[in-house]
Amino acid sequence: MEIAILGYGVVGSGAYEILTKNGYNVKKVLDIRPHNELGDALTANYDDILNDKEIKIVAEAIGGLEPAHTFVVKALKAGKHVVSSNKHLICEYYDELNSLAKENGVTLRFTSSVGGGIPWLVSLNRTSACDEITKIMGIMNGTTNFILDAMITNGRDFDEVLKEAQALGYAEANPSADIDGLDVARKTAISSTIAFKTTISEAEVSIHSLRNITKGDIDYINKKFNKTVRYMGFGIKNDDGTASAFVEPVLLSKGALEANVNKNFNMISLFGNSVGRLSFYGQGAGKYPTGHALASDVIDIYNGCRESKLYGKSLAIDNSKVERQYYVRTVSSLPNDIVKACEVKDSTNYIVTNKITVSAMHSLAKSILESDPHAFFAGIEE
Amino acid sequence: MEIAILGYGVVGSGAYEILTKNGYNVKKVLDIRPHNELGDALTANYDDILNDKEIKIVAEAIGGLEPAHTFVVKALKAGKHVVSSNKHLICEYYDELNSLAKENGVTLRFTSSVGGGIPWLVSLNRTSACDEITKIMGIMNGTTNFILDAMITNGRDFDEVLKEAQALGYAEANPSADIDGLDVARKTAISSTIAFKTTISEAEVSIHSLRNITKGDIDYINKKFNKTVRYMGFGIKNDDGTASAFVEPVLLSKGALEANVNKNFNMISLFGNSVGRLSFYGQGAGKYPTGHALASDVIDIYNGCRESKLYGKSLAIDNSKVERQYYVRTVSSLPNDIVKACEVKDSTNYIVTNKITVSAMHSLAKSILESDPHAFFAGIEE
Repeated sequence: MEIAILGYGVVGSGAYEILTKNGYNVKKVLDIRPHNELGDALTANYDDILNDKEIKIVAEAIGGLEPAHTFVVKALKAGKHVVSSNKHLICEYYDELNSLAKENGVTLRFTSSVGGGIPWLVSLNRTSACDEITKIMGIMNGTTNFILDAMITNGRDFDEVLKEAQALGYAEANPSADIDGLDVARKTAISSTIAFKTTISEAEVSIHSLRNITKGDIDYINKKFNKTVRYMGFGIKNDDGTASAFVEPVLLSKGALEANVNKNFNMISLFGNSVGRLSFYGQGAGKYPTGHALASDVIDIYNGCRESKLYGKSLAIDNSKVERQYYVRTVSSLPNDIVKACEVKDSTNYIVTNKITVSAMHSLAKSILESDPHAFFAGIEE
Repeated sequence: MEIAILGYGVVGSGAYEILTKNGYNVKKVLDIRPHNELGDALTANYDDILNDKEIKIVAEAIGGLEPAHTFVVKALKAGKHVVSSNKHLICEYYDELNSLAKENGVTLRFTSSVGGGIPWLVSLNRTSACDEITKIMGIMNGTTNFILDAMITNGRDFDEVLKEAQALGYAEANPSADIDGLDVARKTAISSTIAFKTTISEAEVSIHSLRNITKGDIDYINKKFNKTVRYMGFGIKNDDGTASAFVEPVLLSKGALEANVNKNFNMISLFGNSVGRLSFYGQGAGKYPTGHALASDVIDIYNGCRESKLYGKSLAIDNSKVERQYYVRTVSSLPNDIVKACEVKDSTNYIVTNKITVSAMHSLAKSILESDPHAFFAGIEE
């Protein structure tokens, strides 16, 4: 059962090193750049992999939608097992790719697409086999956690820390997917899909950006509430047969586990009716952690794991079924009936709202941001 | 592929409920007490299970060494897969039972024997398939964590909280296995065996008891060091081809993840060369969490998982290869050359040692306890 890796970037090269070091032969690596250390294993022509009958497992580490999607579809149709670290691909084509895996009697695994090196999806999948999962939540993005930790620990401001994160390679030149929440939304969608056994798309996850947080917010949250801030995704199975899915900054007690997740680490949790709360902590990104997770999926298939889960759409998304209080900092005003307490300093309102639905708050936030583009919103975890 | 459960106590009945609720038929349950709800499934005669060719998976939840050991050996020899929640059995007979599983082409799984509902051993096993694990550590005993949390949070003393834990069913009438460290030692031995791929026995794990901790210690540790205390097991792979394994109270920074593990929860961590630190948090005991873990092992086998790991003895245990500083509270005195700082209050010495090996400290502790039976020792985590 030979292995091929698509893409010899950060994750692909990490997985290559880990697999070969542990005695697994990687027959082919697809990359268009030269890599002398790969010798004859390197090819720039995908047909060399697709037409090689000995290659039974294809590990996709290209990232993005194309050509990853075309390559993965072809591999599945050719009866090859596929593992992928590509959250964008998995989130966008969850049903199609899992259907193709089923039809062709092969396995699709994507543990490394959420939580990097953390065995999160594999544990979530295993737990949900004999438990009802009612909630998932977590710090799923290392870049934003690095930024928040540095702001909180060193009293620095957002833009300054973001620049440092970019210099260190923790943040992209265009950081929007991280700091505006799309990355977390995709990971929340994939995790909620597996937890609740219903396909949930990226577009169904409602997002507050982290972008507007200031060191003033962090000071205020610390002094006024004795709390701290993290940027988290939430998936919740509601009592009425709907689910909620959203991403937002949250205020946490300082003794909460997530409040003590520092640097670029991740922590993701599930809540099961039988098992209670389970939390998983580790490196959510990086060459060796994510490479390890991709390699582990390959080894699972090597060892006989043959599962692909296809759920279809059984739960509607309804973010009006979850209520919480919010912290809002804005120079605009909020409707009186949702304001529980408001302190005005230097013409800025520091507001704690009454309990309000997630959908109402996210929608209100959009209109507030039109008049006050620097306003900041964070849910308050109980 | 029919299932039988041995023992219908807390864990066995939890697993029974979870399996049947999730569509798995449990054909037989072995128990000597009457349980009307089980109908014809109940038997008091193990031969009814052993001789039933349809029963392919036996889930052992009796606890203790006998008759569990005899039953499990017979099941494996009869070609039945076995899952067990019994840490005492697994720790004592690791090699024998895994050998029998190999010889008979069946699988032995015991995820629920360490960490209750936490998918710890299954994740450790999966991670170690393509990474070198250099260290495991954790809060593995809910009773002692409950006691410490209550002492720290409410300023109460050990004996008082222990009595409450016993009343709540969190601690046994004879609490020694929990508070003197044997329970954690067994879990450390099993975890280290899998992490380092070498059989490590319970007797090789060196133990400091938690029993002598007082609210005075907790106050002192808080005020003097700004730290808190947890009771933890450690397995460490040393550079020289030995391993260390020990259990002791430890002083932790208040921002450490373990310092924020409260009530009777557990947190266990691994450190891998590729994957870095991974931590796993959840309920370490209880009917449904542990029943869930036992049921999950059954389902893994049902789904085709066929692995038993037998390592033999490849690493010697040597606790002189790990050095750390210790906090010691004693009315006796310590050798001058190991004392870094000493404060005397009311004829009691509050000592911080220089770095000293674990073996030297554990051995010194034994002699100190002969003259001062109330002395308390705790390692200081860096």
